[in-house]
Amino acid sequence: MESSKSDAAKSQAVERFLKSQNNFLTVKELVAGIEKGDPHFLAKAITLVESNLDRHKEIATQVIHQILPLTGKSIRIGITGVPGVGKSTFIESFGKMLTNQGIKTAVLAVDPSSNVTKGSILGDKTRMNLLSVDPLAFVRPSPASGSLGGVANATRESILLCEAAGFEVVLVETVGVGQSEYLVKEMVDFFLLLMLSGAGDEIQGIKRGIMEMADALFVNKADGDNKLMSRKAAQAYRNALHLFPAREDNWTPIAGTCSAIENTGMDKVWHTIQSFKQHQSDNKWFEKRRKQQAKTWLLDQLESSLKTCFYEQQEVKENLDSITDQVINGEKTPYAGSQELMSLYLSGIKSKD
Amino acid sequence: MESSKSDAAKSQAVERFLKSQNNFLTVKELVAGIEKGDPHFLAKAITLVESNLDRHKEIATQVIHQILPLTGKSIRIGITGVPGVGKSTFIESFGKMLTNQGIKTAVLAVDPSSNVTKGSILGDKTRMNLLSVDPLAFVRPSPASGSLGGVANATRESILLCEAAGFEVVLVETVGVGQSEYLVKEMVDFFLLLMLSGAGDEIQGIKRGIMEMADALFVNKADGDNKLMSRKAAQAYRNALHLFPAREDNWTPIAGTCSAIENTGMDKVWHTIQSFKQHQSDNKWFEKRRKQQAKTWLLDQLESSLKTCFYEQQEVKENLDSITDQVINGEKTPYAGSQELMSLYLSGIKSKD
Repeated sequence: MESSKSDAAKSQAVERFLKSQNNFLTVKELVAGIEKGDPHFLAKAITLVESNLDRHKEIATQVIHQILPLTGKSIRIGITGVPGVGKSTFIESFGKMLTNQGIKTAVLAVDPSSNVTKGSILGDKTRMNLLSVDPLAFVRPSPASGSLGGVANATRESILLCEAAGFEVVLVETVGVGQSEYLVKEMVDFFLLLMLSGAGDEIQGIKRGIMEMADALFVNKADGDNKLMSRKAAQAYRNALHLFPAREDNWTPIAGTCSAIENTGMDKVWHTIQSFKQHQSDNKWFEKRRKQQAKTWLLDQLESSLKTCFYEQQEVKENLDSITDQVINGEKTPYAGSQELMSLYLSGIKSKD
Repeated sequence: MESSKSDAAKSQAVERFLKSQNNFLTVKELVAGIEKGDPHFLAKAITLVESNLDRHKEIATQVIHQILPLTGKSIRIGITGVPGVGKSTFIESFGKMLTNQGIKTAVLAVDPSSNVTKGSILGDKTRMNLLSVDPLAFVRPSPASGSLGGVANATRESILLCEAAGFEVVLVETVGVGQSEYLVKEMVDFFLLLMLSGAGDEIQGIKRGIMEMADALFVNKADGDNKLMSRKAAQAYRNALHLFPAREDNWTPIAGTCSAIENTGMDKVWHTIQSFKQHQSDNKWFEKRRKQQAKTWLLDQLESSLKTCFYEQQEVKENLDSITDQVINGEKTPYAGSQELMSLYLSGIKSKD
């Protein structure tokens, strides 16, 4: 916390730092580049947002602050489904349909599990070949590492950057399993669940909770011999969705079929999203949800600031290792160790002028 | 943080509080009851551990502190697999095999998703009918709510309580999807992954990361017509496991088949766990992993203490709502709001004597 430094002094320090670096652009240059919609500048800014270095974070914060008036105008779409459901090919097909209509489309991915497993397998594949080279599209792979909260914050800021660069649709793909659905649901306007026919609901790990989060549910790979079965599956989901209690926003989730390979059903997905947006705008839920999401973001940000402040405290730095060792060797309970470190932390703050 | 109060004064305050309550027992009574292995007292203590009330937490802390010397002697087994794989019936069958051998067995469940979805569907079912009434078994359903970290800490403390009550095997079932695997892996000695034959790996949401976490992988429902296919699936997994890089602890995960309905393969699972324990004791990894887990626990505990300290700060309490409103209404970025609250928090700590 450098709350004593004035904002102007901070600004100057950042500019000085930037000028001393050849590999990074100034805040001004970055903002100007993003405003022009230059993908090179957008990518650079996202790199800063994802960085763990304090200096990069400082620049990212200033960029975000300056582009803020340009944000909020896209429709943010989360896309989830079990591995193997064909998320990447779906996004390729859906994205191409949008860019063919002249709609600027950005694709981001969230994979917090790559933090634990040290690199997702999906990340190795070459994905979205057509969309990656489309001048109206911007495709960004998942950040390689970071805490759960860190990945979430970086993705939120990346969404804002894409919006400032003029992207009208931002697709956020969940790559990880489980926790990423909840993260992504909290940062998008519309949540699309892709399913497969033939695999039982239970096998797909689709708990009621995940189905409840979805604004639409499309059975993918509805092609070839699979068409009839996919339609039957969609009908079964449609029936199931009707059994769910009515939503606060009064939206009834849609169930349909699509095929990324045969490029069918993509228009139906887009039509559904547009109907949803109209519906939510009419009943004010669009704005309401975005406000709720801003609150969640604030709380996540607070949590990460709290931790940074704690671990950077001199007294904590000096004692963390020895207390951790005592806990590891069973001389102290984790609770007692935690209490001791908290006391050191608090007295450290008090003694500092 | 009441670090100023002496432990003795705290103790007395807790005893006074307890005496004023008819529905809760004293720390002394609880500890004595747990030591005797009384399931009634064990259940009461777990209720306190799961409680969000400060007074309950205080009692729970004292109980845990007192029973600590009696803990650590069980084998802690995590059990995971997609919904539908038959975890509950497996645990019923496996648990009965253990109790038939006179082995005291406790079953805990972790379902952090119930926090989000407000109650898991699985929680509604009546589960483990035989085990629930077995005098050598203790079955505890998942806590109804709580933060991710809260659920994890409560489960860790519940494991200790079960151990103090003399349970030799503690089974921790993951009920949620995704995040619960990582939580549970961090608190058990042995991690068992249940699979199904016939459903592709991808469909089962089994990413390399989850397979890498498993110490053994059993194909469940290997009964009736499904036997041959299950054996083939186990062989395929065995081959796949051999392709993984060697583990630091040098254990090669086992793949096998079992049927909870026909009660077959349960002895093989138990034999695998015993071999694993011997293997890990011989090469010191058993102790090493438990130490790593104690460290994780300390860090989780620290995180939750940090948050409690923050949100209970007077200055934060007074300003949280108005700053949150400003963020929600777009007058401030989440980052700026967070910075402001952090400044208030830090100056609040400094001004307090």
